[in-house]
Amino acid sequence: MINELNKVMEQAYEAFLSYQFVSGQDKKVFLYTIADEIEDLGADLLETASEETNLPIARFIGERQRTCSQLRAFGDLVAEGSWVDAVIDTAIPDRKPLPKPDMRKMSVALGPILVFGASNFPLAYSTAGGDTASALAAGCSVVVKGHPSHPRTSLLVASAIQNAVSICGLHPHVFQHVVGDSHELGKILTQHSHTAGVGFTGSLTGGRAIFDYGQQREIPIPVFSEMGSTNPVLLLKDALNHKAPEFAKAFANSITIGVGQFCTNPGILLGIKSSALNHFTSLLALELSMIPAFKMLHQGIHTSYVSILSKVLSDKGVETVFHAHADGDLVASPVLARVSGDAFLKNPNLHHEIFGPFSIIIVCDNKNQMIDIWKKLQGQLTTTIIGTDRDIKSNIDLLDVARNIAGRIVFNNVPTGVEVSNATVHGGPYPAATDARFTSVGLDAIKRWVRPLCFQDCPDFLLPDAIKDSNPLGLWRKINGEYKR
Amino acid sequence: MINELNKVMEQAYEAFLSYQFVSGQDKKVFLYTIADEIEDLGADLLETASEETNLPIARFIGERQRTCSQLRAFGDLVAEGSWVDAVIDTAIPDRKPLPKPDMRKMSVALGPILVFGASNFPLAYSTAGGDTASALAAGCSVVVKGHPSHPRTSLLVASAIQNAVSICGLHPHVFQHVVGDSHELGKILTQHSHTAGVGFTGSLTGGRAIFDYGQQREIPIPVFSEMGSTNPVLLLKDALNHKAPEFAKAFANSITIGVGQFCTNPGILLGIKSSALNHFTSLLALELSMIPAFKMLHQGIHTSYVSILSKVLSDKGVETVFHAHADGDLVASPVLARVSGDAFLKNPNLHHEIFGPFSIIIVCDNKNQMIDIWKKLQGQLTTTIIGTDRDIKSNIDLLDVARNIAGRIVFNNVPTGVEVSNATVHGGPYPAATDARFTSVGLDAIKRWVRPLCFQDCPDFLLPDAIKDSNPLGLWRKINGEYKR
Repeated sequence: MINELNKVMEQAYEAFLSYQFVSGQDKKVFLYTIADEIEDLGADLLETASEETNLPIARFIGERQRTCSQLRAFGDLVAEGSWVDAVIDTAIPDRKPLPKPDMRKMSVALGPILVFGASNFPLAYSTAGGDTASALAAGCSVVVKGHPSHPRTSLLVASAIQNAVSICGLHPHVFQHVVGDSHELGKILTQHSHTAGVGFTGSLTGGRAIFDYGQQREIPIPVFSEMGSTNPVLLLKDALNHKAPEFAKAFANSITIGVGQFCTNPGILLGIKSSALNHFTSLLALELSMIPAFKMLHQGIHTSYVSILSKVLSDKGVETVFHAHADGDLVASPVLARVSGDAFLKNPNLHHEIFGPFSIIIVCDNKNQMIDIWKKLQGQLTTTIIGTDRDIKSNIDLLDVARNIAGRIVFNNVPTGVEVSNATVHGGPYPAATDARFTSVGLDAIKRWVRPLCFQDCPDFLLPDAIKDSNPLGLWRKINGEYKR
Repeated sequence: MINELNKVMEQAYEAFLSYQFVSGQDKKVFLYTIADEIEDLGADLLETASEETNLPIARFIGERQRTCSQLRAFGDLVAEGSWVDAVIDTAIPDRKPLPKPDMRKMSVALGPILVFGASNFPLAYSTAGGDTASALAAGCSVVVKGHPSHPRTSLLVASAIQNAVSICGLHPHVFQHVVGDSHELGKILTQHSHTAGVGFTGSLTGGRAIFDYGQQREIPIPVFSEMGSTNPVLLLKDALNHKAPEFAKAFANSITIGVGQFCTNPGILLGIKSSALNHFTSLLALELSMIPAFKMLHQGIHTSYVSILSKVLSDKGVETVFHAHADGDLVASPVLARVSGDAFLKNPNLHHEIFGPFSIIIVCDNKNQMIDIWKKLQGQLTTTIIGTDRDIKSNIDLLDVARNIAGRIVFNNVPTGVEVSNATVHGGPYPAATDARFTSVGLDAIKRWVRPLCFQDCPDFLLPDAIKDSNPLGLWRKINGEYKR
């Protein structure tokens, strides 16, 4: 196995040496072609993904759309080109006591990137998902370790990417796909000397192991592991009084979408003891009761959900508000639980993510206790505030707490359904991610795979186009502190 | 000791909770006040630093100037404010199939930052140096572990910062100074739960140890260790033919400045066997012979320099071109050595940094060997190309190699004397730094201490000023992909 993996990484490095210089326009054509090839897989892809994951075809129509839009968005980003963050400080030859040199910098690709896809997003966060799209956009070659829970889907998508490589006449090893489910395989690839960075989406255990392998190398490399969250939601009084039915419906959907197997699933709902909170709780249970139960992705996730759930629901002070009856292999019952703030604070089990269609309402004695609990939660991908302007104006201090907890603060909406835009942050304080300074969703995901390179007094003819005086690519550039195009 | 350090970090966290919200204007006043207070230390500071480091007063006049300029430059940066990289994607409520939310992001401070200063820059990269200045500018509280080789200098500078804290009415623990030289102290501080990031400048051994402590935590944190380089210089034919005397003088100064104790010291000079290279070598030796020998920083560095040197100079094929006679305690002889490309490739000892006034000329058989050697060197802070336009035009492939080696590529100048500007990169592939995606010199050094935070559908009145619709701070912002102010 080691010889074979060595060969893969050597090929990835060879491919990187030429691919890093491919123009933004050509990378756009490549990324668009990947999207076209994925769409050309047609019903075969949708059916295979559905078979392998127990998720409905309709879900994959949406996820394919997201995956292809994402690939094309990165294509547009690199064709436009300003993402390289070109910064130019021009020379001042007569500065005293020393002349000021001409200094220019731009982002350049890191090298071959290793991607571990997520089981819960076989298209959008797996083989041709956000990590692959952003790394290819950056100019890095990519090696994907196909997820063992959807091997045929992964192979189909890999074949689409390989077709695109060949259609675009790129180095044949710009993209490679490795199959296998051993722990050792991931370790060897992460620790190979040619691996320059890793993107991982999945569990805390897996993400932390890969991170550790990356940091224990002789030459440490960036490992961005996105490892999920409980995504705490604050339910404020005035909003509950006026919009309980609307939010109950939205949260019932958010808790159960994808059978709760989303890293932005709202797993903890915080409110202050009141009749309004009781009313919302009943409405949420009622809404959940109208949503059918579905099968989970695979046996491992189902077993884990059932066993954690049975433990947590028998914990002291935990009340089961709603527990759907669910029959059949791998089917997961949506569950709503409730616990007092005091009992929650005493029970660390309740602080961790429960991966599945589960959420727990924390009934706090007062605002102080709610803030105290909120602060004590681990780092989060998201935190959500449900509140009218009146609620928020009388609780203005809440935002200061929210800022230190999460990568994204959502107002009056559910945390699931992450928009892919320039401003997206999908990351956050550990264990949401291993480095809160980066994001794995949105266009800035590309920043994980590049480093700045400075050219001092470089002759203009030798400079990359992005930082040539004449700005032949028409980029936005920061010149002596001002953005210009 | 543990109780005391616990208290320090708890105080640093308390200070961070308020300091993170201090405005850019107020942080500017603070950073300018620190610079003023350092200048007010007057001759006392210069003399103390000189006594503790064996470096001349004149050097500290320059280094103080650099330190204070740097503090003021970060003050200007945060007062202007655009450094927070505000990105706004406005809502499209009627988008199909789903409405597009309003997404805005900006950088926010990480938390308390721990700084390990460098022995070779007691002012510019130590107590109030680049790491401290950039972290305070970012809105982080700072704990400096004073360097044991200049304790009195560090205490003087710390008192200047503490005066500034008090003059500006900030939380008294925005800045704290910890004294001690045990390894354990650094480990405890790095692994404290309130430490959110670390800046280190120094040796590979020390920098790697601190990095490992940071990554082995339950919650890993960013550790930026800058650990030095050999800074390879390519000497091309036409330049040697036409400008040998000029470059020999410049490189003799660069090799010996600060008694060679600079991380950008040009330790390896690569050229192709020729009479021009021989001539340059002689001129360089001659220039070196006219530079007096000085004392090194401390006993440890001197002992290490002498012992590595005596080993290397007796290695097979290594010829001593010039070895200054040096008398007296701690005095370091400037040394120029020479070796063939073949012998260099066979001897890994020669590939590592030798900290002191030393450089070695590698006489390569031909261009292929020169490129081969260049590629095989470790990651570098800088690499330099000395060549006329004619040289460069006939060796255009060299730049592709340079790009993958270093953080900064210098043309026709020496690598020492790092300009502090927007475009500066002082970092590079490991072991130049532990994360090539960041820099420790220049204004982007601030990016090490912040993370992006996204606000989704946040009411305008609640948004930080940087991302409010009305742009009250007048920042450059990226709005729907376009930079605007």
